Amino acid sequence: VSAIAAEIAEQPDSLARLLRDGRDEIDALAARIVEARPAFVVVVARGSSDNAARYAQVLLGVRNGLTVGLAAPSIVTLYGGRPDLSGALVVGISQSGVSPDVVAVVDEARRQGAITAAFVNDAASPLARAAEHVVRLHAGPERAVAATKTYLAELGALAMLSASLSGHGWDELAALPARLAEALEEPRAIDAARFAGSKRLVVLGRGFHYATAFEIALKVKETSYVLAEAASTADFLHGPVAVMEEGLPALIVAAGRTPPELPSLLVRLPELVVISDRAELLGRAALGLRCPSVPDWLSPLVAIVPGQRFAVALARARGLDPDAPRGLTKVTETT
Amino acid sequence: VSAIAAEIAEQPDSLARLLRDGRDEIDALAARIVEARPAFVVVVARGSSDNAARYAQVLLGVRNGLTVGLAAPSIVTLYGGRPDLSGALVVGISQSGVSPDVVAVVDEARRQGAITAAFVNDAASPLARAAEHVVRLHAGPERAVAATKTYLAELGALAMLSASLSGHGWDELAALPARLAEALEEPRAIDAARFAGSKRLVVLGRGFHYATAFEIALKVKETSYVLAEAASTADFLHGPVAVMEEGLPALIVAAGRTPPELPSLLVRLPELVVISDRAELLGRAALGLRCPSVPDWLSPLVAIVPGQRFAVALARARGLDPDAPRGLTKVTETT
Repeated sequence: VSAIAAEIAEQPDSLARLLRDGRDEIDALAARIVEARPAFVVVVARGSSDNAARYAQVLLGVRNGLTVGLAAPSIVTLYGGRPDLSGALVVGISQSGVSPDVVAVVDEARRQGAITAAFVNDAASPLARAAEHVVRLHAGPERAVAATKTYLAELGALAMLSASLSGHGWDELAALPARLAEALEEPRAIDAARFAGSKRLVVLGRGFHYATAFEIALKVKETSYVLAEAASTADFLHGPVAVMEEGLPALIVAAGRTPPELPSLLVRLPELVVISDRAELLGRAALGLRCPSVPDWLSPLVAIVPGQRFAVALARARGLDPDAPRGLTKVTETT
Repeated sequence: VSAIAAEIAEQPDSLARLLRDGRDEIDALAARIVEARPAFVVVVARGSSDNAARYAQVLLGVRNGLTVGLAAPSIVTLYGGRPDLSGALVVGISQSGVSPDVVAVVDEARRQGAITAAFVNDAASPLARAAEHVVRLHAGPERAVAATKTYLAELGALAMLSASLSGHGWDELAALPARLAEALEEPRAIDAARFAGSKRLVVLGRGFHYATAFEIALKVKETSYVLAEAASTADFLHGPVAVMEEGLPALIVAAGRTPPELPSLLVRLPELVVISDRAELLGRAALGLRCPSVPDWLSPLVAIVPGQRFAVALARARGLDPDAPRGLTKVTETT
């Protein structure tokens, strides 16, 4: 079995470990937020962790009344800008905790007196040392170049922060490892052969699943070398929809609450993969991937699993080794 | 001549008109910002206007010390979330000013007591009515479905806001219409035939040109039906670089200050279009598109012009009518 497939399969255990061992650090950060009441939140991240940042924006906005923005590190690292972060909570998210641009933004924020936090798998990393609060992901070593279990752990830690801030949702979180195990078992195998001939894929999701769409597209790019472009269903209708033509496949994440534009999109996309918890949506796809039904705010943690599995199945159908992405190393350092 | 080509050519005049007639509204907004000192800025937009928002983030961060985030309208419209915007400046940007999701976020922000502003081409639109401050774009009616001159006017109005806030840059702005006219003349014609056979394109830019890369990719998708994916050069190295293979074309925007990873990227991308003001970078491309040299903060206003012209040339080389994007209408309303 490949490293990535093994790490996908570890996710229920990894999340259960985070729920058990990670709570103290997260509760401490939540207490600091409640006490200091930051005016806004900035998340700084790259790659899969930037997709976790997209989840943080919707999650903390919907459940906790926090306005969250994603940082543009170039402002600090390329131009020496000093945007005012003094009233902010600044969260760096990174598996390795080494990318210098992510560390630079957290450094600058702390210098200005912002509340800073690092969500990291490696508690001895430069990012962990830069931040006031450290939230360890407890995912264990990740060997595959394409991140899977650390992405899930990032979502899990963010969901725990949301629960700790609001005081509710812990019971729903506790039920999640079992739902993840179901997502690994059904469908038992994914047949992606039908989609193996295309070097292009459009991946759509909105709201909580904006992050899911971006993360699935990234996994497909990393493992199958297919140019997979992610967009929110709403943004897609404001221009990119023009690219759709017969034979261009699309994947839509439609679990939980779905956007009003979904029905009109479904009829425009004939070559379709659907990830959903609803039989009527799955039945309209060329390939329907069922995911367990969970509350909307936790849906990205289960809906990503069939997406990860689809990426691996697509790589294999294309005759590729999903553990050896072209041009990539496990740790990428950008400045 | 097509509507889009005519509107691309109008851009020097359109920007000169904005500089002449738009200043009072922008100075009034700047005075309000200086007086009220919002803790952060949120921009809400869709399509090309969302790319103008990407410019706003870097521009106001680098030149004005403001932290800018891009809104996720779904938080409000899909889930009924009420993220705290009370300490913010919330800017809606839209050509038409009608998309209900953009209006909903500005409505919610104003209800909470935020400073609100609408950057719109249509001053009678719902978005203009929703906001406290209106900044008219003075671009005149836009007939082509793919926005060009209104995107440029949005960048121009944001650059004017930055100049008004900082008190400097007006002389550099005043010189810009002449630079735009140069960008329309050189190169005199763009030969995109070499790239017409590919249905995929990667478009890269960072910092100020993050916006330029996204806007060029959107124009290519809208007019040439090529799946053009934009990324920052840094994000690209954190995963998507795996898609690169012989024959997959890339376009890099490398005008003004360029990121440290650029040299290593150039050698990895053989089938390359470069937009730059530097001869040594242009000489390394299969197709080099020179743009005028201007200060970094204004470079997106001139570098977009060869990008727009490349998109139109590519559409024609693919035998398409760039005025008739498949599946699109001029005004898109999403909720």
